[in-house]
Amino acid sequence: MNAAAADSLPTPALASSDFDAVLAAAARIASHAHATPVLRSRSLDALAGCELHFKAEHLQRTGAFKFRGACNAVWSLDDAQAARGVVTHSSGNHGAALALAARTRGIACHVVVPEGAVAAKLAAIEAYGGILHRCAPTISAREHACEQLRRDTGAELVHPYTDPRVIAGQGTAVLELLSGPTGFDAMVVPVGGGGLASGSAITLAARSPTTRLWLAEPAGAADTAESLRRGERVTDVVPDTVCDGLRGTLGAPNFTLLQRHEAQALVVGDADTVRAMRLIWRHCKQLVEPSSAVALAAVLARPKKFARQRVGIVLSGGNVDLDALPALFALAR
Amino acid sequence: MNAAAADSLPTPALASSDFDAVLAAAARIASHAHATPVLRSRSLDALAGCELHFKAEHLQRTGAFKFRGACNAVWSLDDAQAARGVVTHSSGNHGAALALAARTRGIACHVVVPEGAVAAKLAAIEAYGGILHRCAPTISAREHACEQLRRDTGAELVHPYTDPRVIAGQGTAVLELLSGPTGFDAMVVPVGGGGLASGSAITLAARSPTTRLWLAEPAGAADTAESLRRGERVTDVVPDTVCDGLRGTLGAPNFTLLQRHEAQALVVGDADTVRAMRLIWRHCKQLVEPSSAVALAAVLARPKKFARQRVGIVLSGGNVDLDALPALFALAR
Repeated sequence: MNAAAADSLPTPALASSDFDAVLAAAARIASHAHATPVLRSRSLDALAGCELHFKAEHLQRTGAFKFRGACNAVWSLDDAQAARGVVTHSSGNHGAALALAARTRGIACHVVVPEGAVAAKLAAIEAYGGILHRCAPTISAREHACEQLRRDTGAELVHPYTDPRVIAGQGTAVLELLSGPTGFDAMVVPVGGGGLASGSAITLAARSPTTRLWLAEPAGAADTAESLRRGERVTDVVPDTVCDGLRGTLGAPNFTLLQRHEAQALVVGDADTVRAMRLIWRHCKQLVEPSSAVALAAVLARPKKFARQRVGIVLSGGNVDLDALPALFALAR
Repeated sequence: MNAAAADSLPTPALASSDFDAVLAAAARIASHAHATPVLRSRSLDALAGCELHFKAEHLQRTGAFKFRGACNAVWSLDDAQAARGVVTHSSGNHGAALALAARTRGIACHVVVPEGAVAAKLAAIEAYGGILHRCAPTISAREHACEQLRRDTGAELVHPYTDPRVIAGQGTAVLELLSGPTGFDAMVVPVGGGGLASGSAITLAARSPTTRLWLAEPAGAADTAESLRRGERVTDVVPDTVCDGLRGTLGAPNFTLLQRHEAQALVVGDADTVRAMRLIWRHCKQLVEPSSAVALAAVLARPKKFARQRVGIVLSGGNVDLDALPALFALAR
């Protein structure tokens, strides 16, 4: 799936070939990624007034769903391309995920990171075997560094959310959720660049078209909500949110796909997100990051919308900066 | 099992009737308690230099293994006794566990709590349906209040760790762990009053007598280590530790049983415990409380003792006071 391919579809339906790519991804990553559990909580069901099923992607390898897409991309390469390695520019969960995915295939992974990136995250990328390349903290410096690396090494660029192999991989999380005994009225996933959202949309269209897709988005980075409202992609939002995994701008192919799927955005303030995160910690004993909790916060803030529904929620990751907790908790007082 | 019964045993072996009680408890609580999962972490195995298998009792109902013993006690009562309810004096995990256990049988649960107990813990007991009775913060006031309640209501006292029904219930956690595919060289459990430790000892003696039982204990409440060293129970330790679940004094029957089993104590400082807790949070994404993490801390501090062994660890609970985290983390800097 890319923007041009999506535009050429004759009807508003999603292309079935996209779902084939999700099924292929599921088979491709099966021996590397975890089939994560689905968690329930009586207490949170009572608080929300609906039936919540949490897909525990914070228990995925590298602590985030990102490993699915990265792993699918790495194992989609032919041997000659794989031998030249992969490259990306993400100092967050995608960088770590691509590094570990590359290691599962024994190939090199180059990660371009801006000066000033969080040391703990860089250490994680290196711990998974990624090779760091520092650049100035601007988008042009980052893209230039990536392009230079591709030319020098022949490595394949794996974009964190517009790459169709990544989107297909992310679609396997909801595919697993739907393969369980429960049918869903609603599916709520966090949205940043839109990789998980797009993969989820493709899977729902093919496997459970009556399930409504909701995109939970921080108020401080609500470019997706604004893009869907205006009918054109907004790219000038300057993110200001504690959800560090959701600061990216919605990708062009992701926008096309989500618009076509009639996905709707639910905007959530950071204080509500931190409160929801604490609820998941307290009742489920699961350490999820703020970018995961935004989905539960979206549901809790709209009790009428979800009343008595069966709601799937993707807990997208668990890479919390523990040293930043006091500041985070102070937001929710 | 009680002290007198244990003393009357003809040999140093544990009575097989004790293990029968564990098996009976497993059957009795099966429809109420969770069979909790066993968790693994490649990263923690690498750090520890051994193979760690975590029994996830923080995912037990009420967030602690205590529900097993409380549930066994409640469902061991005959109908006439049950109708009069149960009573205990614990403002911690046992109080909440007994309250929920009583609710599963539809009977009353009285909990005597000292003035000044943590509000969040009292709220948890009430949320599970427990009836709070406040008393002055002294042991004699507590025992007097309990005795008064027993006389007034006819409720059955369920002691948090010396009650043989409680000990049998706690023994089901390790029973489940041993029913998996893995055999263990060592089992490490936290020790406070000794209910979990005693139940684990009984189960190991019957099902896996070659598995060594280690008791992880905070340095600031090391009465068990001192009791086992001296060969007589020490009761004058004034606890000073962040492990709020392990501040109790080892019970008399628990001491007899653990001594007989040749259990050995491993003493751990609070800073090491908090560091181990953060490791479990980071690598397993599981929110465990300090009283759980003391067991991993004990292993990490003694790499030679556990090198290349298969080690079972009971993560005893996950009821963390999130508001106290900054102070907790400050200990481990």
